[in-house]
Amino acid sequence: MPERRFLSDILRRVAFGAWPGARHGGDLPEMCHELLGERSEASGLVLGREILDVYEAADAEARASFFEALAQAFGVDEAALEAAITAWRPGDGEAARRLHAAAEPRSQELIRVLNRVPGATARLVRMRADLLGLIKARPHLRGLDGDFRHLFASWFNRGFLELRRVDWSTPAAVLEKIIAYEAVHAISGWDDLRARVADPDRRLFGFFHPAMPGEPLIFVEVALMDRVPGAIAEILAEGREPLDPGAAKVAVFYSISNCQKGLKGISFGNFLIKQVVAELSAELPGLETFVTLSPVPGLRAFVDAAGPDDPVLAGVNLPADAAPDDETTRRLAARYLTQARRDGGTAFDPVAHFHLSNGAELYDIHGAGDLSDAGRRNAWGVMVNYLYDPVKTEANHRSYAHDGAVAMSSKVRALAKK
Amino acid sequence: MPERRFLSDILRRVAFGAWPGARHGGDLPEMCHELLGERSEASGLVLGREILDVYEAADAEARASFFEALAQAFGVDEAALEAAITAWRPGDGEAARRLHAAAEPRSQELIRVLNRVPGATARLVRMRADLLGLIKARPHLRGLDGDFRHLFASWFNRGFLELRRVDWSTPAAVLEKIIAYEAVHAISGWDDLRARVADPDRRLFGFFHPAMPGEPLIFVEVALMDRVPGAIAEILAEGREPLDPGAAKVAVFYSISNCQKGLKGISFGNFLIKQVVAELSAELPGLETFVTLSPVPGLRAFVDAAGPDDPVLAGVNLPADAAPDDETTRRLAARYLTQARRDGGTAFDPVAHFHLSNGAELYDIHGAGDLSDAGRRNAWGVMVNYLYDPVKTEANHRSYAHDGAVAMSSKVRALAKK
Amino acid sequence: MPERRFLSDILRRVAFGAWPGARHGGDLPEMCHELLGERSEASGLVLGREILDVYEAADAEARASFFEALAQAFGVDEAALEAAITAWRPGDGEAARRLHAAAEPRSQELIRVLNRVPGATARLVRMRADLLGLIKARPHLRGLDGDFRHLFASWFNRGFLELRRVDWSTPAAVLEKIIAYEAVHAISGWDDLRARVADPDRRLFGFFHPAMPGEPLIFVEVALMDRVPGAIAEILAEGREPLDPGAAKVAVFYSISNCQKGLKGISFGNFLIKQVVAELSAELPGLETFVTLSPVPGLRAFVDAAGPDDPVLAGVNLPADAAPDDETTRRLAARYLTQARRDGGTAFDPVAHFHLSNGAELYDIHGAGDLSDAGRRNAWGVMVNYLYDPVKTEANHRSYAHDGAVAMSSKVRALAKK
Amino acid sequence: MPERRFLSDILRRVAFGAWPGARHGGDLPEMCHELLGERSEASGLVLGREILDVYEAADAEARASFFEALAQAFGVDEAALEAAITAWRPGDGEAARRLHAAAEPRSQELIRVLNRVPGATARLVRMRADLLGLIKARPHLRGLDGDFRHLFASWFNRGFLELRRVDWSTPAAVLEKIIAYEAVHAISGWDDLRARVADPDRRLFGFFHPAMPGEPLIFVEVALMDRVPGAIAEILAEGREPLDPGAAKVAVFYSISNCQKGLKGISFGNFLIKQVVAELSAELPGLETFVTLSPVPGLRAFVDAAGPDDPVLAGVNLPADAAPDDETTRRLAARYLTQARRDGGTAFDPVAHFHLSNGAELYDIHGAGDLSDAGRRNAWGVMVNYLYDPVKTEANHRSYAHDGAVAMSSKVRALAKK
Repeated sequence: MPERRFLSDILRRVAFGAWPGARHGGDLPEMCHELLGERSEASGLVLGREILDVYEAADAEARASFFEALAQAFGVDEAALEAAITAWRPGDGEAARRLHAAAEPRSQELIRVLNRVPGATARLVRMRADLLGLIKARPHLRGLDGDFRHLFASWFNRGFLELRRVDWSTPAAVLEKIIAYEAVHAISGWDDLRARVADPDRRLFGFFHPAMPGEPLIFVEVALMDRVPGAIAEILAEGREPLDPGAAKVAVFYSISNCQKGLKGISFGNFLIKQVVAELSAELPGLETFVTLSPVPGLRAFVDAAGPDDPVLAGVNLPADAAPDDETTRRLAARYLTQARRDGGTAFDPVAHFHLSNGAELYDIHGAGDLSDAGRRNAWGVMVNYLYDPVKTEANHRSYAHDGAVAMSSKVRALAKK
Repeated sequence: MPERRFLSDILRRVAFGAWPGARHGGDLPEMCHELLGERSEASGLVLGREILDVYEAADAEARASFFEALAQAFGVDEAALEAAITAWRPGDGEAARRLHAAAEPRSQELIRVLNRVPGATARLVRMRADLLGLIKARPHLRGLDGDFRHLFASWFNRGFLELRRVDWSTPAAVLEKIIAYEAVHAISGWDDLRARVADPDRRLFGFFHPAMPGEPLIFVEVALMDRVPGAIAEILAEGREPLDPGAAKVAVFYSISNCQKGLKGISFGNFLIKQVVAELSAELPGLETFVTLSPVPGLRAFVDAAGPDDPVLAGVNLPADAAPDDETTRRLAARYLTQARRDGGTAFDPVAHFHLSNGAELYDIHGAGDLSDAGRRNAWGVMVNYLYDPVKTEANHRSYAHDGAVAMSSKVRALAKK
Repeated sequence: MPERRFLSDILRRVAFGAWPGARHGGDLPEMCHELLGERSEASGLVLGREILDVYEAADAEARASFFEALAQAFGVDEAALEAAITAWRPGDGEAARRLHAAAEPRSQELIRVLNRVPGATARLVRMRADLLGLIKARPHLRGLDGDFRHLFASWFNRGFLELRRVDWSTPAAVLEKIIAYEAVHAISGWDDLRARVADPDRRLFGFFHPAMPGEPLIFVEVALMDRVPGAIAEILAEGREPLDPGAAKVAVFYSISNCQKGLKGISFGNFLIKQVVAELSAELPGLETFVTLSPVPGLRAFVDAAGPDDPVLAGVNLPADAAPDDETTRRLAARYLTQARRDGGTAFDPVAHFHLSNGAELYDIHGAGDLSDAGRRNAWGVMVNYLYDPVKTEANHRSYAHDGAVAMSSKVRALAKK
Repeated sequence: MPERRFLSDILRRVAFGAWPGARHGGDLPEMCHELLGERSEASGLVLGREILDVYEAADAEARASFFEALAQAFGVDEAALEAAITAWRPGDGEAARRLHAAAEPRSQELIRVLNRVPGATARLVRMRADLLGLIKARPHLRGLDGDFRHLFASWFNRGFLELRRVDWSTPAAVLEKIIAYEAVHAISGWDDLRARVADPDRRLFGFFHPAMPGEPLIFVEVALMDRVPGAIAEILAEGREPLDPGAAKVAVFYSISNCQKGLKGISFGNFLIKQVVAELSAELPGLETFVTLSPVPGLRAFVDAAGPDDPVLAGVNLPADAAPDDETTRRLAARYLTQARRDGGTAFDPVAHFHLSNGAELYDIHGAGDLSDAGRRNAWGVMVNYLYDPVKTEANHRSYAHDGAVAMSSKVRALAKK
């Protein structure tokens, strides 16, 4: 790692008293001011790394104070902004661009300069994760978060990401992160992981960024099957007999996990699924169908919140908690998924919204698909297939985006009507 | 390359009439408007690639029209800007951040969206190279260029670059670019290249970006020697006997070439030299001295432009063109390099400015160092050593940055005084 | 893997009835005869692979029959041998070389031809492991085993091996083999493995062969410490605080495992230790001492077998099984390790013999070093350090090889004398 | 390269006077005797490397003396051989195997021990190339050469080789060897090479051995075309328009070069062609035909040597040297290729023999196919296509191997009859 060697070389050579960071006694905002004024790139690297180190050693309260200081003291240069506003006249595009430059908060430049430190990108992503955790209580930090998000959207641009297959030849250091990050159907340990990445009828693909090569950003788990499954147990059953992948007809996306809290709002999932469809099609020409096996995380919450007169629930029975009846839960879920909406007209269910806006079709609904505690608690055990039909995704996507139209199979349509 | 496969897969599947690009008959600005409005990422990729293809197939005039259209029609949204100005009050940091967002020219978002296309980064860098070629004649495009530069500075952030040694095990596809990009002492062909990268006492290091893995951004050529050289012929002589690198005492940076016109204004050179110093120190502990052997490109131009009463030239003789005398040229160069300044107080000579602002010291001056046509024409053959002493670079850098003080050896000081 | 693609391509094209293997109905010796007569390399590959497949599907009895057939029917061509003997006269070197060729058993050629099949090397190594398991009961198969060993010694020549560091960036497929193959101090699972390869003060190095890239041949585990340890618990303690490797003074080889039963008799350990010493010296110049922490596997067996009058045991007490006294066990071990010999004069203890013949010195002896069941059962818990002093290994090796002299520290010498 | 570091580490540590090599003053045979007696592997490595160094520094005469000494003094141990002969009785397979071991010339063990030195394999291959150059004048060295060949056949076993595509991303260090080794149609420089490996309708594949990773063993050049070519100029024409590889129907093997003289008699070509056919079929499903475009190197020599009454030439005219007539040369070549035989019944022409024994079919014959000096001198410019039809190669191979039957197209058959 030449970068690290370079940095330690600098650290070794630069006499410590000689650079400004030491003067501040670990006062982060003061160090940041110094950093923005620093014109020597070598000193800047040293100081930038010290800022990240001090930040990471700080406790929650000190971190919060740091964000408050960033939001206040590293905002826009108001004098420059006023001058730029004064200088601008409608129709003067150059002056408008200068205004834009003048309106840039100093926090953006600060984040960019910090990112020059070798290995900083992952550390900045974790820093934003901390910030996101504070925003509910301190909504005035939302603007600062916007600075992070704006830069991350640029740095984690689709064109910079790398799709990689994760399998049993992947370094253990990456695999242990897969175990840690799986958010849908927990991986119980290395044996479970092995079954999910090394069995011949299993695949796992993730997006990675070159500046964080050991950190998956998002990954999807795929089961190759001979049918569309209705329950997660069909996929994760221990001791099952693997299928010859050449004989598989269906690729099932049964788990998608975002790995980095600090990248919230930077969307990768749509690209990931479509690119994996392309990969699998090329590798296994026998595949005919690409579906998900997905949870319905918002069902119970919707039912609990909706009054008895909610039109979505009109005429459907509610399942008994102890022994939910398949027919009842399926019908309830069909109604919910096709009709429950948020204010903007998008599907109420977040997973449904994700797949529908990607252009998928609501394909099938199964009772008793996920009998785990979470599955029962959230949705009486219901699971759903969304179908990715490459021929239709564009049209589906447009209809949903423009009119909120939910693409669904005739089976689901019938179920929702009953 | 899964990305390419993904894209061709999309192209294969999407019926061409179905997506909006085809409607515009290759009208680039209209396609760009469509692209910004496109919410389907798959369609966005297809359309983005088409824009890049159409642009690259266009002639110079069509490209210029495209830039004009971008500058005008993809500037700031003025209504939104006015609203944001109205909403802002000094002291309201969140509103200032919203103003910044409102002031972003749409061209920036356009460039970001185009960059999602696999392989787009290198194509956008070439696009900016075209734009830069137009700016002299069309200075109103400077703001648009600023949009490119702003994004590139973020994307080509030091933290994303990779230092690589280029040697005889490097792929030929990269090596042929080294031949093409060498800007200081031209490489005459593969044999010359081989001598510069494969001889045991030669090194070549470059910075690369993960999104352009086959394209060097900047590279430096190094000769390992037992003394500080005074003429380029000592380094590039054919048939010379290579030195055992373990016996080398001096590392000479004899050529630094920026490779990408489209990355003008994004500085890598300072980092490159310092990182290579660290690399070489680690590999060869016997190295004691790190110097350049550099041209003086601005000497003749300065002399030609300066009136006879220019104080820099007071008391020095001018060399005869046909047979310049070493003593005369050295003294002239010493005076020029230490005293000739630009308006801001920086060194007049661009190479001097580069190294002095990196913290190097003007170490020695040689007559008859470069007897090529360019060497004679620009500087009567004078060449210069700048010394990189890791212990002093920080202090030198600061003195030069703050007071314009030129660090120099006592030898050069004496020469400039004579 | 082009090789596999090639083979499946052949298999796809060749009509099955067309090649001779099918004719034999899985009769291995007949297939092998056919293979040696086969002049088409493509058919040879197909047939060779079929032989390996049939062998691996066979039960123990069928495998034994196969080896018997190989030993008998694939021996030397006696007619040719007799002719070559007749043709030879002492002093006729060319005739002697022809005699050698004539005396080659056909089984050697058969093994070579089988090895052409992609991936065959590992399969042949496993085949020999089976054979070795039969030899005790069928000593007449020893010659056949010699054919394997002769070829393996040539194929697994030191010049073809690759030393690799195994760490947490190693593919899981290799790491799970490390878990399986550790023969000295069992690895209890992935967490234990992680501590042994990923803790900053731990190293694991192995030899690999290019034809079996996922299979370690032998590996050694190293602990970086600030002292010479006396008990395995100092190394493997859970929850211990890792040492900064830069501060380490001692490298401890605490476990060496041969991985491939089928490579018995092909020695790699000596090279491995010496190469790892060189690697570690280069990486960590602060290392001063290279020692093992080794078991004494033959101690109890020797004591049990030796009569009370055995001179080695004269004057030493035997430890109590329930509560062995350190002093007693150490003194007993010192006497045993320095004096107990096999018929050829080599050390009785196999671990002692291995290290002494590598040129190591018996450096220290510890009671209660290994309190595991095996440690107590074999050696009352005694563990030993052997010192690898690069300056002395050559001389030690020679003395031991020529005179059976055991190099030992003065401490051990004193202990053995008491 | 840990191996080299290991060795230099040993060299650094071992006091030079301490090891036996220095005693011999560079007497190679004496050093070799010492090496075989050496039981320390570290000393063995040092001494082995010294032997290779001394050998390579020696002049031709000294090398020849070394081979003579090897042949004489490193032959079979005659006493051991006589004892083994005495001990053997027909039917005693174990004794026969012991006889084989006793008959092994010591030169084989010597070569194996030398091969332990890092990087030795390539050096031993070059050593054998020297030996082969001496054999004509010293036929009694043939046995010694057999020792090399025997070991090389085992080490360069097909199962150990790696097929690699060579293209423009290949390291320059390998590419310059391709230029040097091309034996059929010389590569004039890097531009010519670039056209042969980087043009979209060109391919170059080679076999490599893991112990000589930078050295191709054999390579084949392929042109992707839309027809079967009749002249080399169609392939190598400068400035030609490359074909879209997806549109190619024919893959033409237009040059096969063995790279290592020292591997003479170890055949790779058959495997190479068949594996490349499989590779190309997988990459480009549109390929229908696999042919060579080959020279006829033995034609003129055969005609010159054959008397006028030679039945092969009966009834055919001989072409005029100055202006050979296509029809005449084609008919002559057809007769020669189908009827001229060596004593064993194989084709007289070496290229014909190579392809026919691989199972290819003589497909077409062209006048004026190779108008270079060599092409005219050897064969009046005639070139030939051999067809590799995967469906027929096995049967063709068998017929040729058993009955000498030459597979040919009806077109060639007609031409040979006329």
